[in-house]
Amino acid sequence: MVTRTQVGIIGAGPAGLLLSHLLHLAGIESVVLESRSRDDIESTIRAGVLEHATVELLKAIGLGDRMQREGAVHDGIYLRFNGGTHRIDFTELIDRNITVYAQHEVIKDLVAARLATGGQIVFEADDVQVHDIDTERPRLTYRDGETEAALHCDFIAGCDGFHGVSRPLIGGPQRQDFTRVYPLGWLGILVEAPPSSDELIYAHHERGFSLVSTRSPELQRMYLQCDPNDKVEQWSDDRIWSELHTRLATHDGWTPKVGRIVQKNVVAMRSFVAEPMQHGRLFIAGDAAHIVPPTGAKGLNLAVADVQVLARSFGEHYAGRGSQALDTYTPTALRRVWRAEHFSWWMTSMLHSFADADPFQQRLQLAQLEQVCSSRSAARTLAENYVGLPFNAQLN
Amino acid sequence: MVTRTQVGIIGAGPAGLLLSHLLHLAGIESVVLESRSRDDIESTIRAGVLEHATVELLKAIGLGDRMQREGAVHDGIYLRFNGGTHRIDFTELIDRNITVYAQHEVIKDLVAARLATGGQIVFEADDVQVHDIDTERPRLTYRDGETEAALHCDFIAGCDGFHGVSRPLIGGPQRQDFTRVYPLGWLGILVEAPPSSDELIYAHHERGFSLVSTRSPELQRMYLQCDPNDKVEQWSDDRIWSELHTRLATHDGWTPKVGRIVQKNVVAMRSFVAEPMQHGRLFIAGDAAHIVPPTGAKGLNLAVADVQVLARSFGEHYAGRGSQALDTYTPTALRRVWRAEHFSWWMTSMLHSFADADPFQQRLQLAQLEQVCSSRSAARTLAENYVGLPFNAQLN
Repeated sequence: MVTRTQVGIIGAGPAGLLLSHLLHLAGIESVVLESRSRDDIESTIRAGVLEHATVELLKAIGLGDRMQREGAVHDGIYLRFNGGTHRIDFTELIDRNITVYAQHEVIKDLVAARLATGGQIVFEADDVQVHDIDTERPRLTYRDGETEAALHCDFIAGCDGFHGVSRPLIGGPQRQDFTRVYPLGWLGILVEAPPSSDELIYAHHERGFSLVSTRSPELQRMYLQCDPNDKVEQWSDDRIWSELHTRLATHDGWTPKVGRIVQKNVVAMRSFVAEPMQHGRLFIAGDAAHIVPPTGAKGLNLAVADVQVLARSFGEHYAGRGSQALDTYTPTALRRVWRAEHFSWWMTSMLHSFADADPFQQRLQLAQLEQVCSSRSAARTLAENYVGLPFNAQLN
Repeated sequence: MVTRTQVGIIGAGPAGLLLSHLLHLAGIESVVLESRSRDDIESTIRAGVLEHATVELLKAIGLGDRMQREGAVHDGIYLRFNGGTHRIDFTELIDRNITVYAQHEVIKDLVAARLATGGQIVFEADDVQVHDIDTERPRLTYRDGETEAALHCDFIAGCDGFHGVSRPLIGGPQRQDFTRVYPLGWLGILVEAPPSSDELIYAHHERGFSLVSTRSPELQRMYLQCDPNDKVEQWSDDRIWSELHTRLATHDGWTPKVGRIVQKNVVAMRSFVAEPMQHGRLFIAGDAAHIVPPTGAKGLNLAVADVQVLARSFGEHYAGRGSQALDTYTPTALRRVWRAEHFSWWMTSMLHSFADADPFQQRLQLAQLEQVCSSRSAARTLAENYVGLPFNAQLN
C-alpha cells in the first residue's frame, strides 16, 4: 500500500496531533503514524499545566470548549518552605494565568478534531522507518497489521518522543546533545480525595521536594521527591502520607486531604536538548528534540511551541514564500527551548533537596526562595517563565 | 596603660572606621585598634563600587564632599557575551545608581573625619587580644610600641577582617561556617591609560571572564579570570593584552585602551559566612564575618550595612531602649548577607568559564545571560541587587 501526503508525521502525542491540525487549518495535508492504540494514548496520564499561550492557541483553533468547561484556571502557585507559604500571583504580576487540564484530555480533543475534519491517523503503525530525508522525496514505511505500507511525503515531522526513531537521523557536524541527569526522582500518586489546595503547592523541605497538584473534584495528583531508582513497592501508603505530612507541614497546621491511593509511579528527572532540530527534510519537535524535568511544567508547552513554529514555517513554504522559515526552524525553536530548559533547571535546583549539597548550597537555595518571595522583580521573572512567553515574542 | 571606652573596635577598615564614626555621631565613645600604619591602610587598593545606600549614608554623615567631587556616578553596567554588548540601565530600571570611588579613598575620608572629631585610632597596635566577652566588662589588650596596653569596654566590635582574631571567639552550639571555594582567580592590573569605557564591562567568554573597570582619567583597573594558583610572573604584559583583546572582542571591533601596566596581582575567589555574628559582648562585622567573590561588588557595601545595623543597635542600648536590637543583630544582618552571598555566587556562576562545566551547563549560562538581557524583570532583579537594597528594607 502506497500513499502520498505533504507532511508525514510520526507520533500522535500533543506535538504530532496539534501539528497535523494546524497544517489542516492552513490547507496542508498530513498523515499521522502512531505505534500505540487510540485508547492507549487517550488514557496515559501525563502533565496538565497549560501555559497562557497554549490555551490561547487551542481556543483560537476551535479546541477550547471542553478545556474551558472542565479545565481549571489558576491565577498563581504557592511556594512553601520553612513552614511558611508564599503565593506567586501570576495575574497580579503579569496579567496572565495558566490552565490545569490534563494532557490526555488535550489529546482526546485533538484526536476528535482531526477525525471530525477528515484527518488521517494510523494507530498501531508498527516498525515506522524514515527514508531519504536528504532528498526532496522523503518516505515513511510501516506495517499496518499485516500490510507493509509506504507514505511518500514532501517533509517529515518527527514528533515521536525521546525514544523515537527520528532524532538519531539528525546528523551532520553540528549535531550535539546536551544532557543533565539529576539524582532525583518523583514518586507520583493519584489519590481519591477532594482537592487539598485551590492552586498548586511547590514545597521545599530538607527531606525533599513535594508538589500538591489537582486533577478533578474527586481525584488528586501529588508528587514526592524520591531516589530515581526507587521502586513503587518501597513506598507504602503509610510512608507516602507520613512524608507528605512532614514535608508539607506549615506553622498553621495545614495538612493534605487523605484518601485511597489508586496509582503510584516513579519518574526519573533529566534535561536534554538535541541540536539541530532538523536535517534535510526531517524536522523534530517536542520530546523527540528535548526533555525537561517536570518542575517547570514546560514539556507539553514546549511541544506546542515547537509545532506552532513548524506549522507556520510549512505554511510559508506552501504559500510560495520561500524556505527561510523552514531553514531557520532550529534557531527559532531553540531560543524558547533554552529559556525553558534554564527555567526548568532553575526551578528544580531551587526546590529539591540534594544529597551532595554542602551547607553553603543549602543556604543559597533558601536565599533564592526568599528572593522570589520578597522581590517583585524576581517573582515576575518566575511568573513570566511559568505562565510562558507569547509564541511570537522575540527573545533577544 | 589602661584606658576605658564604651565600644572597643578592632580594625580600621571601612567597617571599623565607619562604625566608630556612626557611634560618635550617636554620642557613643569608641577606640579603634589597627595593626597596620595609617599610610598602609590609606594606600592599599581594593574595591571601588559603592551601592546607592552606601553613598546616601556617607553623604548623610558629612562624608560625601570628596566622594561626590572625585567619584564617578554610573547609571548602569555593560554585559558582554557572544560578541554583543548589552547595557543594564540601573537608573531607568530602578531609579537608583552606583558610585565608583575607591575603598582607600573612603578610608582616607573616614580617618580624616575621625581624627577631626577627636576620634581615637591606635595605628600599629600589635598583638591585639580579646578577653572576657562572656562578662559585662570585656577587654582588649595590645602592645603600642613597647607599651602593654589594656582597653576596657562595654562591647567589642570585631571588624578585623577574614584573618582577624575575633571570629574564632564566636562559639556555642549554633556556630557554623559556610564556605565555597571557587576554582577561579582574578588577575588584577592597573594600567596607565584613559578609560576604555564609560561604565564597567562584565564580559563572559569561553576563555574566561574579564572586567573593565575605571579608576581615574589616567589610571584604569582591569581583571582577567585566571587560575587561583597562578603567579603574576606567568602573566606577561603581552599575554594579558592578548587575552583581554580576545575575551573582550565585539562584532563592532571595540578594543581596550592599551597602556603601561603598573601593577599586577592575583586574588582567589571564595564565599564564606560565619553564623552567628555575635557572642556575649563581641559582635563581628564585614570581612570578619563573611566574604564574597568580587563579581557582585558587595564586600565593602556589606561591611557598611553590617555596621549600620550595629551602630543603630548600640544606639538603642545606650538610649536605654533595651537590648533587643543587639540581641537580634545576627538575624537582621544575615538577611542582607545571604541576599548578597546569593547574588555574588549568581554573578560569579553566570559570568565565569568553568573547566568542569559540561556543554549543558555552558548553554544554561548563555540562557541566563540572554534572560537578563531580554526580560525587564530579570534585568531589574540584577539591578536591585547590584545597586543594593535600602538599608532599612524588610527582606521578608
